[in-house]
Amino acid sequence: MPPPKAQKITPRARDFSEWYTDVIQQAELADHSPVRGCMVIRPLGYRMWELMQGALDAMFKATGHENAYFPLFIPQSFLAREAEHVEGFAKEVAIVTHTRLRATGKGGAGAVEPDPSSALEEPLVVRPTSETIIYAMFAKWIQSYRDLPLLLNQWCNVVRWEFRTRLFLRTTEFLWQEGHTAHATEAEAEAEARQILGVYRRFQEEWMAMPVLTGLKTPSEKFAGALRTYALEALMQDNKSIQSGTSHNLGQNFAKAFNVQYQTAAGGLEHVWNTSWGVSTRLIGGLIMTHSDDNGLVAPPRLAPIQVVIVPIYKTDDEQRGVLQAAEKVRGDLEKTGVRVKLDGRPELKPGAKYFEWEARGVPLRLEIGPRDVAAGQVTMARRTGGKAPVRLDDLAAKVPEALAEMQGALLQAARERREQHSIRGVTKQEFIDFMKAQGGFAYGGFCGSAECEAEIKDATAATIRVLPDPEFRSPEAPKTCMWCGKPSVAEAVWAQAY
Amino acid sequence: MPPPKAQKITPRARDFSEWYTDVIQQAELADHSPVRGCMVIRPLGYRMWELMQGALDAMFKATGHENAYFPLFIPQSFLAREAEHVEGFAKEVAIVTHTRLRATGKGGAGAVEPDPSSALEEPLVVRPTSETIIYAMFAKWIQSYRDLPLLLNQWCNVVRWEFRTRLFLRTTEFLWQEGHTAHATEAEAEAEARQILGVYRRFQEEWMAMPVLTGLKTPSEKFAGALRTYALEALMQDNKSIQSGTSHNLGQNFAKAFNVQYQTAAGGLEHVWNTSWGVSTRLIGGLIMTHSDDNGLVAPPRLAPIQVVIVPIYKTDDEQRGVLQAAEKVRGDLEKTGVRVKLDGRPELKPGAKYFEWEARGVPLRLEIGPRDVAAGQVTMARRTGGKAPVRLDDLAAKVPEALAEMQGALLQAARERREQHSIRGVTKQEFIDFMKAQGGFAYGGFCGSAECEAEIKDATAATIRVLPDPEFRSPEAPKTCMWCGKPSVAEAVWAQAY
Repeated sequence: MPPPKAQKITPRARDFSEWYTDVIQQAELADHSPVRGCMVIRPLGYRMWELMQGALDAMFKATGHENAYFPLFIPQSFLAREAEHVEGFAKEVAIVTHTRLRATGKGGAGAVEPDPSSALEEPLVVRPTSETIIYAMFAKWIQSYRDLPLLLNQWCNVVRWEFRTRLFLRTTEFLWQEGHTAHATEAEAEAEARQILGVYRRFQEEWMAMPVLTGLKTPSEKFAGALRTYALEALMQDNKSIQSGTSHNLGQNFAKAFNVQYQTAAGGLEHVWNTSWGVSTRLIGGLIMTHSDDNGLVAPPRLAPIQVVIVPIYKTDDEQRGVLQAAEKVRGDLEKTGVRVKLDGRPELKPGAKYFEWEARGVPLRLEIGPRDVAAGQVTMARRTGGKAPVRLDDLAAKVPEALAEMQGALLQAARERREQHSIRGVTKQEFIDFMKAQGGFAYGGFCGSAECEAEIKDATAATIRVLPDPEFRSPEAPKTCMWCGKPSVAEAVWAQAY
Repeated sequence: MPPPKAQKITPRARDFSEWYTDVIQQAELADHSPVRGCMVIRPLGYRMWELMQGALDAMFKATGHENAYFPLFIPQSFLAREAEHVEGFAKEVAIVTHTRLRATGKGGAGAVEPDPSSALEEPLVVRPTSETIIYAMFAKWIQSYRDLPLLLNQWCNVVRWEFRTRLFLRTTEFLWQEGHTAHATEAEAEAEARQILGVYRRFQEEWMAMPVLTGLKTPSEKFAGALRTYALEALMQDNKSIQSGTSHNLGQNFAKAFNVQYQTAAGGLEHVWNTSWGVSTRLIGGLIMTHSDDNGLVAPPRLAPIQVVIVPIYKTDDEQRGVLQAAEKVRGDLEKTGVRVKLDGRPELKPGAKYFEWEARGVPLRLEIGPRDVAAGQVTMARRTGGKAPVRLDDLAAKVPEALAEMQGALLQAARERREQHSIRGVTKQEFIDFMKAQGGFAYGGFCGSAECEAEIKDATAATIRVLPDPEFRSPEAPKTCMWCGKPSVAEAVWAQAY
């Protein structure tokens, strides 16, 4: 890959949105494509996605799920079978209507157009999500209680025709996983939806070092066709929240629409209970906005495609020989311990240019080796998040994993502290308005449960209820009244402006 | 997953095509979907694909390639920029023309149709392959010789609107990888195309136990837009050939169409040389038709999702306790050695039913453990390909991997022998006609190089030139005349009927 151009990264304080795009471009994580709203995920970004997939996939398998693959296309009539579902997706689907191109005969030699004679009898929708096509198959596969639970997951691309797109955060096409399960009882489906929420939380905190709130979505924010939607929300450095995953208890809505029934042990016939859940390449956007700084990407070590870069420093040919030999040995030793390490031996670049480049790409540790280091039997270890110290070569195989683990923990800790500094509890209406106008963040307060209050608040402050938080995130004292209208509170809510 | 229904598998000798579909259904590898020509890959089939991906991906990375991801959609005008390319794909593309559904107002409550007001200005083609969109990005990324070679690969889905579809072999949507590279010189591109052909061959022989011929495609069979196409061909049990992978030297065709130029070290401006190469889920079809038998799937051990199944045998509760304990210990011990092992403890099924089921699913080794085995400190090891013998528990951790490796080698050997038995060299025209009418297989003979001969032969025998074989596959004596028209031969060719 070509080295990144020496373009500057806009400081966060000046323009957060520009900064975000600059970080992605400078680190070569992704790029805009000629197709409106679709991005190209470049090797560094895709490798990060592969590492995420590997960790999540192992967690799904450990909880009994198997991967499968379902068609990209969904007959338009399938989408329409569940009323709320089609309502939710009808305005953002890519629709395939023809299957041949023909020469137009005008507009130059190569001009083509859909051949009218190839129009499909029933147009096909490019999957925005796969409930309908998957549950149509479940109806075929599930006959008896012995076939339950059925626990599947698929890794794939989906398309939602979005009008305002942002790299990773909101793109017309994105990559994700979608889990789909069928259960004999409501309690089992509920337990599954909650279990996956826990898996997502563990992944996002332990791997991405991104602290999350979990809880229930209000009816106005839940998934189109779900009984209940649980979600994870993470606060970004600009104090806006990102929904970083959802897990839905679908009840029997889709089972009824697609006639997914099973024979009970007693011989009766019942509809199954479904769940579905997903996280997407949007997570990469969340990771970037949680940790990165004005020098570029900061990658949590567990998901860093390159965890350690070795930069040799020399002037003479003689120095070069000794330094490269030592650097190569360090590389080999670290690789043996399972560290993802790269030796940057490019002769055409000065060490400073390399530092700059690998910082922008978020590499957690840099090892500098010069002739004096070689003579002293050491290297200089610099952390992406600050700090530089000599480490003896003998200690390196122990010190590098130790430093990586420390950085991983420190990133989570720092993000959690930042979030708490930008959270406000037990707000009154005026405090809420001021908070959202000034810095923003997570505002905890009483909520009367009415969609009217939600709509008013959104109009006035652009903030929405991110979740009705799970018990461990709730304030010690339950709010008594709705912070907006003053009526009795039915639940504590967490508001924020959101991506 | 529900146990397979006790439906019978049609014998190969009666109807090979029915047999193929039965094997897939019985093993639950895949299923037909409600979308014409699109299949569902079920967990066992998908796990096999994951194992294939893992092995291939490691080989791609070891040869310096990185993964990336490019958009699903291609503006129709892009496809048209390379004349041969659009000619080759225009008749089989899914075309997106609209982005919203609306209620029809007729045909029932849920009836929907594409909203005419959402028509796209430029229709988008669902990628049938990604040369055009990828080289459009290469034009942006490549400036100088320092940016070369650029070695990318992507794992994704593609769509080709096929009229006659078969599970795995030919489906409207399929999964594949497509490598795309750019090089400074023709020689480097040619070396890359050849290198990948070698990678594919190694994978197909060492992992799939599927012997292949490699060689050059004739102009009438080459990829639309390529300079040269190399391919791998494997002979199935019905003596038809499957094209199991292709590697193209694209020359500068796409570089010129998309203006991908680089500055040379000397300061000049040159078009790059591209290659592209791919293998798909079609490989699973090839694997099935190479090894499987009338009892179902035979999976080569290296790609078997489950390599060993343990079936406990008992009558009394007392026996059950001892047997299950021993079985669990065997499972744990084998798992530690890295074997993919499953203990089938389902109480509702008799051992015989389990044998039947795991045979159909292609599990290479079955370990039977009954009370007498426990007492004797042994298990009975049965091979999917025949043969059964006791193995001492102490020896199991050594004997199981040994047996798996032996089976892997034996499958390749058997397939190679079968292929050679069904190959005929130095054919005359009449021999060729008789051979294709009778058993079929690989026929080697002289070829004059004319497309007219190819067309005539296809009309008369349904056989096509699979490859002009690489040197190691050629007959000891080069043929002097075209086996069909008698004119001087320009190359030896291998003909077969093909999938």
